[in-house]
Amino acid sequence: MRQNRAPDRLRDIEFVRNFTNNPAGSVLVSFGNTKVLCTASVELQVPRWLKESGSGWVTAEYSLLPGSSTERVTREASRGKQSGRTMEIQRLIGRSLRSAVDLSLLKEIQIILDCDVLQADGGTRTASICGSYIALVDAVNKLMEDRVIKKNPVISTLAAVSVGIVENVALLDLDYFEDSNADVDMNVVMSDGKFVEIQGTAEKDPFSHSQLTELLTLAEKGISEIVQMQQDILNGN
Amino acid sequence: MRQNRAPDRLRDIEFVRNFTNNPAGSVLVSFGNTKVLCTASVELQVPRWLKESGSGWVTAEYSLLPGSSTERVTREASRGKQSGRTMEIQRLIGRSLRSAVDLSLLKEIQIILDCDVLQADGGTRTASICGSYIALVDAVNKLMEDRVIKKNPVISTLAAVSVGIVENVALLDLDYFEDSNADVDMNVVMSDGKFVEIQGTAEKDPFSHSQLTELLTLAEKGISEIVQMQQDILNGN
Amino acid sequence: MRQNRAPDRLRDIEFVRNFTNNPAGSVLVSFGNTKVLCTASVELQVPRWLKESGSGWVTAEYSLLPGSSTERVTREASRGKQSGRTMEIQRLIGRSLRSAVDLSLLKEIQIILDCDVLQADGGTRTASICGSYIALVDAVNKLMEDRVIKKNPVISTLAAVSVGIVENVALLDLDYFEDSNADVDMNVVMSDGKFVEIQGTAEKDPFSHSQLTELLTLAEKGISEIVQMQQDILNGN
Amino acid sequence: MRQNRAPDRLRDIEFVRNFTNNPAGSVLVSFGNTKVLCTASVELQVPRWLKESGSGWVTAEYSLLPGSSTERVTREASRGKQSGRTMEIQRLIGRSLRSAVDLSLLKEIQIILDCDVLQADGGTRTASICGSYIALVDAVNKLMEDRVIKKNPVISTLAAVSVGIVENVALLDLDYFEDSNADVDMNVVMSDGKFVEIQGTAEKDPFSHSQLTELLTLAEKGISEIVQMQQDILNGN
Amino acid sequence: MRQNRAPDRLRDIEFVRNFTNNPAGSVLVSFGNTKVLCTASVELQVPRWLKESGSGWVTAEYSLLPGSSTERVTREASRGKQSGRTMEIQRLIGRSLRSAVDLSLLKEIQIILDCDVLQADGGTRTASICGSYIALVDAVNKLMEDRVIKKNPVISTLAAVSVGIVENVALLDLDYFEDSNADVDMNVVMSDGKFVEIQGTAEKDPFSHSQLTELLTLAEKGISEIVQMQQDILNGN
Amino acid sequence: MRQNRAPDRLRDIEFVRNFTNNPAGSVLVSFGNTKVLCTASVELQVPRWLKESGSGWVTAEYSLLPGSSTERVTREASRGKQSGRTMEIQRLIGRSLRSAVDLSLLKEIQIILDCDVLQADGGTRTASICGSYIALVDAVNKLMEDRVIKKNPVISTLAAVSVGIVENVALLDLDYFEDSNADVDMNVVMSDGKFVEIQGTAEKDPFSHSQLTELLTLAEKGISEIVQMQQDILNGN
Repeated sequence: MRQNRAPDRLRDIEFVRNFTNNPAGSVLVSFGNTKVLCTASVELQVPRWLKESGSGWVTAEYSLLPGSSTERVTREASRGKQSGRTMEIQRLIGRSLRSAVDLSLLKEIQIILDCDVLQADGGTRTASICGSYIALVDAVNKLMEDRVIKKNPVISTLAAVSVGIVENVALLDLDYFEDSNADVDMNVVMSDGKFVEIQGTAEKDPFSHSQLTELLTLAEKGISEIVQMQQDILNGN
Repeated sequence: MRQNRAPDRLRDIEFVRNFTNNPAGSVLVSFGNTKVLCTASVELQVPRWLKESGSGWVTAEYSLLPGSSTERVTREASRGKQSGRTMEIQRLIGRSLRSAVDLSLLKEIQIILDCDVLQADGGTRTASICGSYIALVDAVNKLMEDRVIKKNPVISTLAAVSVGIVENVALLDLDYFEDSNADVDMNVVMSDGKFVEIQGTAEKDPFSHSQLTELLTLAEKGISEIVQMQQDILNGN
Repeated sequence: MRQNRAPDRLRDIEFVRNFTNNPAGSVLVSFGNTKVLCTASVELQVPRWLKESGSGWVTAEYSLLPGSSTERVTREASRGKQSGRTMEIQRLIGRSLRSAVDLSLLKEIQIILDCDVLQADGGTRTASICGSYIALVDAVNKLMEDRVIKKNPVISTLAAVSVGIVENVALLDLDYFEDSNADVDMNVVMSDGKFVEIQGTAEKDPFSHSQLTELLTLAEKGISEIVQMQQDILNGN
Repeated sequence: MRQNRAPDRLRDIEFVRNFTNNPAGSVLVSFGNTKVLCTASVELQVPRWLKESGSGWVTAEYSLLPGSSTERVTREASRGKQSGRTMEIQRLIGRSLRSAVDLSLLKEIQIILDCDVLQADGGTRTASICGSYIALVDAVNKLMEDRVIKKNPVISTLAAVSVGIVENVALLDLDYFEDSNADVDMNVVMSDGKFVEIQGTAEKDPFSHSQLTELLTLAEKGISEIVQMQQDILNGN
Repeated sequence: MRQNRAPDRLRDIEFVRNFTNNPAGSVLVSFGNTKVLCTASVELQVPRWLKESGSGWVTAEYSLLPGSSTERVTREASRGKQSGRTMEIQRLIGRSLRSAVDLSLLKEIQIILDCDVLQADGGTRTASICGSYIALVDAVNKLMEDRVIKKNPVISTLAAVSVGIVENVALLDLDYFEDSNADVDMNVVMSDGKFVEIQGTAEKDPFSHSQLTELLTLAEKGISEIVQMQQDILNGN
Repeated sequence: MRQNRAPDRLRDIEFVRNFTNNPAGSVLVSFGNTKVLCTASVELQVPRWLKESGSGWVTAEYSLLPGSSTERVTREASRGKQSGRTMEIQRLIGRSLRSAVDLSLLKEIQIILDCDVLQADGGTRTASICGSYIALVDAVNKLMEDRVIKKNPVISTLAAVSVGIVENVALLDLDYFEDSNADVDMNVVMSDGKFVEIQGTAEKDPFSHSQLTELLTLAEKGISEIVQMQQDILNGN
């Protein structure tokens, strides 16, 4: 099915830092035609259940802009509630980011990552995690420059990618068309070379242990490449 | 941590069929102290987007009863919305059940599985899948007895279990206390010996490929035992 | 209409105490095929308008599980609001229970009774009141054992039953089929031999003063029998 | 407690017909300082579940205007939901009105009674029923003049009043201050001399059978006086 | 189009003060057949974002009663949300009233103006502003009589009117039929002879600068007449 | 107050067409630091009340992304409702766009303009109108290329700008800081040299007729410059 890209090849990935100026971190991340604006906002107040716990918090919200897709996506604000898909995705993003942060070092501070998908072409949740990580680091760096926190709470790398099986071929970083035709669809999040989240779903036929291993190997390869890009950008290369 | 149960041992599992009489299928499933009432209701009407498609539908809803936990769970109906956790779980249950059904054989019929947790002690989502499968089969059998459908749309086995790593030990079928202390928590759904869903989360430290393999092996063992119990019950043993 | 039961005869009634273990009180009550799980949860916090009033609070929530009826009941949590019928019923249950409690003895404590109908066959609100009373007493007893409160705030008996006129015959404890055909439908709640609530509705023809008297006499008889069962159970007989 | 009015005496009652001009019926009803605007709107469409049933429908909605009380009442539209009290009251009003109408004669027509309380001083639900009855008759008369329906679907009289026990005295038609101090509070709805609804609540001590009889006798007296006023007005006296 | 009223002539205007007794101010204002009940409620608590700011607050809420129009208006409380039109109107009313008040003199006090339209025949938002102004003054006067505030925070006059172009003629104070046929519809709010709000909309063809001037001249004339009436009433004439 | 820009000077304005690829029109518009993504989605279905009317429809939705401002804006989708400000703005955008379209030529087609503010620095609603106009023209051109419609329904130019009085100086195109300090704030929308909407608000002191004239003259100048830019872009210059 895939024609101009090897099965184990990522799409073109770009991280535009400081895409907007108001939030503490702002990254426009592209994975091929998928474009997500990830902003990191700092609030000097944690959720109620964390008050006086000494711990900070990192959370995420996700949204498909109505114009992000060929068929318009109903605006959740006018419908009055977020869909199950939105909730599931933003919970995944938040959990993943927290795994890279020592919350006890973020005392009484909350960082909210907003992932607004400007253009959707598959892999929006994994792109959101990759872009949000950079926005989060930028926000944390500002907090350290401003001496609001002393020790860097970001304790590991973090990246994510989707993999899947389409027409019996294991593919890395599926676009929307591939995703729609996948037998198996899997999102993998890794931190310092280990797994943080694995979410695999058989859309059609169930998959075997050996297929799983093949998919995870692909994901590990893709993630190590993405982590390299993230580090290059964060190091100013 | 675990004392009176081997790490690869399931809790006591029980399926009480026809626990209530009104719905087409009604199963009270217990995994240790976790008790979920799974009912299958038949509606002769599919969701709008499936109308005139010739296809049927299977979906699920999930709820923790307010009194299911030691600390009362706020009733979602009075709060006016379902939590992200609830949505995520009921989407998982629905997807899993659909993987065992040929929807094209369920013409114009929708089966809704309601999983109401009477008592929560860990593993409510996997227990819900296991119990719902039996309620679904019972509902389908009634439809076939009543000659509403001709061919059995249930095409495979289906069961699920949780596994996790607690204090460096891989454990099968975690109870609430174990789950609260797990480094890794994973839900696995299988159908005819293959994977339908894998959802693994590192709650504390990320996990390695070999730890993943150990967990999946445990899950496969547990699921094959559960499938055997389900078949025994469905066969009237 | 009624065939195997005298007009002044209650259905088989059963109270299963400690049906679940997590809440302070948990009673599965059956009136014939009507089954309601009544749990009592204790919160060490009263509603805002009672703070620093020195008074405690008792309230109730009610729900029909989706699978409780032959035709599936839409889950109120997914619809996003409780129906008028639900609100009316849970207000009645809460008011009735409060009439048996001296709230000033429940200092700063709230007890919430959750009545979740597992199977509906008429009389769910009166069964909820009867079962909740036992769950409430069990919760209060725990509070007294734990020396959280000193004096028993439960100051009277409490039970409820439905009565009605079907085909010109006054009937005690209507099942769903009878209720659907009733000309008059009345719910009566009594405490220590006096009326706490009377809610009578002419579904078809209005009723006379003498019919009202006949119905109330039936209700008094039924309630005195239920109170006896409650006392036997609470006394460990 | 009551000073310038005998215990069995109604407050001054006034019905202003055609208080506004746009709806088919519009009555400003006063019971003492309680003032409710009752309007009857006609819709040539019944609720979905009545379509093609041949039957019409009568229903009611109720609201306290924010400025109706000394302490401002939160506007339910801005809070986003109706309170349980509102729902309970509007269900009572709707049921009561339907008892006076032969719905089969209202073919495919729905009449909605809106009861908006401009000033609240006790007895708003019973005043709403009394005023709505006249608005309903006016709306029905217009439908008959316009030959939309042929036979009068209003088949009986209808009126309601509150009674209660305050400091051991049974009182007719309680104002807000009396209601706040009542031991027992009862709303009675009658049609052609018989009971349509009885809703009695012991706010403090439970009540005996003989107290109930005393209250109902008072209510019957009051309702027969109100029915007389309604008939005088409808007859143009 | 307009027949019995000159283009620059207001409809009959009436302000009934103390139409109801419970709130601090209560005015029934009529502009022809448009009737709005404007009540002013005083709360000794400002919104959260003003706490400890030393400033008071004035705000407004607006609603069309369901029976206010020939075709019934859906009750926003039962629909669960306010329409965009309602929100836009109540924001305009609130802003306008605040322009006539020195909030710093209303220390820690909030005055809420509720504008409930009993009968709608065009110009409900401008009638609401005119009537609310008097209700506000009445509420403020009570606060001063009760010595809750010392200095009068109402610092200017305030009135509003609609103007429009219908069939090429500029008209003052449009009724519903005129409004429905207007090419241009404009609401003007003035305070002490100057503009507080101008909201003009071309419903059909856009309008020129000279048409705008003509409309504003009409509005100024109308508003000066309304202000005179308001002053006469407030002065007890 | 304004330092490096003449009072009658617009900020730098940029329109990036086809900023995203999925919707029929997609324009990223900047007015200085204000950046709004305006997308036009085509639906072959009109709202219910227009069905079988032969007319098309144009409407708009507006949102501030959470990261658009220095202080994070609560996501309306997670709060469950749109604010009054959002509703007011999107109604203005929709009305303005409809004034430039002959809806009867858009048979059975709806075009929805989504204006999502990526970065907010004043004038977001007027920038939304200017950008949406180009996205609308692009969408209409595609419909004409695809021969879905035959005659161009866009019948006039359309642009908008804000003006205001700050420290007694009339300013064109206010940024956020200027807007926050404005005595008068006015949004003006024009089409072919005439007014479509004027919304002027005295934030502090009311304004005179001559100040209004000065503001409108400024707005006319600004709008004619914007229209020129729009035409240049649409003509491919």
